[in-house]
Amino acid sequence: MPKLVDHGARREEIAEALWRVVRRDGIRAASVRTIAAEAGWSAGAVRYYFPDQAGLLSFAMDLVSRRVSERISALNASGGAKGSPTAVALRYLEEALPLDEERRAEFDVWIAFMAQAQAESDAGSLHEHVDKVHDGLRLLCESLVHLLSESGTLRKDLDRRREIERLHALIDGLALHAAIQPGRSTPARVRQLLRHHLESLLS
Amino acid sequence: MPKLVDHGARREEIAEALWRVVRRDGIRAASVRTIAAEAGWSAGAVRYYFPDQAGLLSFAMDLVSRRVSERISALNASGGAKGSPTAVALRYLEEALPLDEERRAEFDVWIAFMAQAQAESDAGSLHEHVDKVHDGLRLLCESLVHLLSESGTLRKDLDRRREIERLHALIDGLALHAAIQPGRSTPARVRQLLRHHLESLLS
Repeated sequence: MPKLVDHGARREEIAEALWRVVRRDGIRAASVRTIAAEAGWSAGAVRYYFPDQAGLLSFAMDLVSRRVSERISALNASGGAKGSPTAVALRYLEEALPLDEERRAEFDVWIAFMAQAQAESDAGSLHEHVDKVHDGLRLLCESLVHLLSESGTLRKDLDRRREIERLHALIDGLALHAAIQPGRSTPARVRQLLRHHLESLLS
Repeated sequence: MPKLVDHGARREEIAEALWRVVRRDGIRAASVRTIAAEAGWSAGAVRYYFPDQAGLLSFAMDLVSRRVSERISALNASGGAKGSPTAVALRYLEEALPLDEERRAEFDVWIAFMAQAQAESDAGSLHEHVDKVHDGLRLLCESLVHLLSESGTLRKDLDRRREIERLHALIDGLALHAAIQPGRSTPARVRQLLRHHLESLLS
């Protein structure tokens, strides 16, 4: 009887080995060979799942967006966050901020891919995956600004589209700062700044 | 008679070759060998100026902060920006945003180094240079918030330290967005969002 292989789990296992390599040695070090060594596989076995490096990088990148989406869905499934509109928005936005070890790893990997995608402006394939994460976060900001608006607390003089873009940029900036100087931009400080920003949008 | 060599200019020439390699092929591709080829030099000649790659990367990174500082100093020397406090702040902040080809190159290089520094958390040497750029931008935000405060236009209910951090995070987020999706986060849109943010700080 042939062995049943969970190909999806195998792909995730390889992508996680890639994450560890990128986090430890930088994206420069991520090759099929180093990733195979990290996963304890042969290079041939890795190539069976990912014939080229671009496919491997794209899969790992998509794993970041999938993990964020899964956390948001889990939050929705549990009945959503509770409390004031600000508290609810904060709770959701935290899922996209590098405020613990797991989310820091995701952010570091995202930044590494983003930087690589910027450099490979003609290749385009990495760019598509960066856009997916980027658009996902904008969509979250959009939902939360609409939530504030529907709960009647958003200031009437504010332009919703502009506030979505401003919130989105602020989130990415705070994430960047939390990653660059975690001692200064601590989780507590990032939450405080974000809360202050959200409150400034309310009437 | 021995030839007079401008070592500083030579170093910048090499750093600029490194910039082109990083922008075109990613930081993964930046080695003494590829940079020498790009500059039209021998690898030995590049090694004469930069014995190791870490030194080369650090120099290129510092070149980014030096260029931004030089533009700010030039602005100061020309009597500073003119107009309302918002217009002045905008004019200065633009120097740190990737709104034209030159500043886009600087930002892409900075992001590539930053990502690499994140990965090399133990090495520390790249980190120091990332911090320098980061702290430089925070200092600029600090000066501008103080300017708004001294001109008497900053809202009295705002905490200056918090507003410096919020502005700094917003600037980096806007820069990131301008780099990731230049078609959506156009220079005009980025200026508009930044102007709106600055105006929200005024009484």
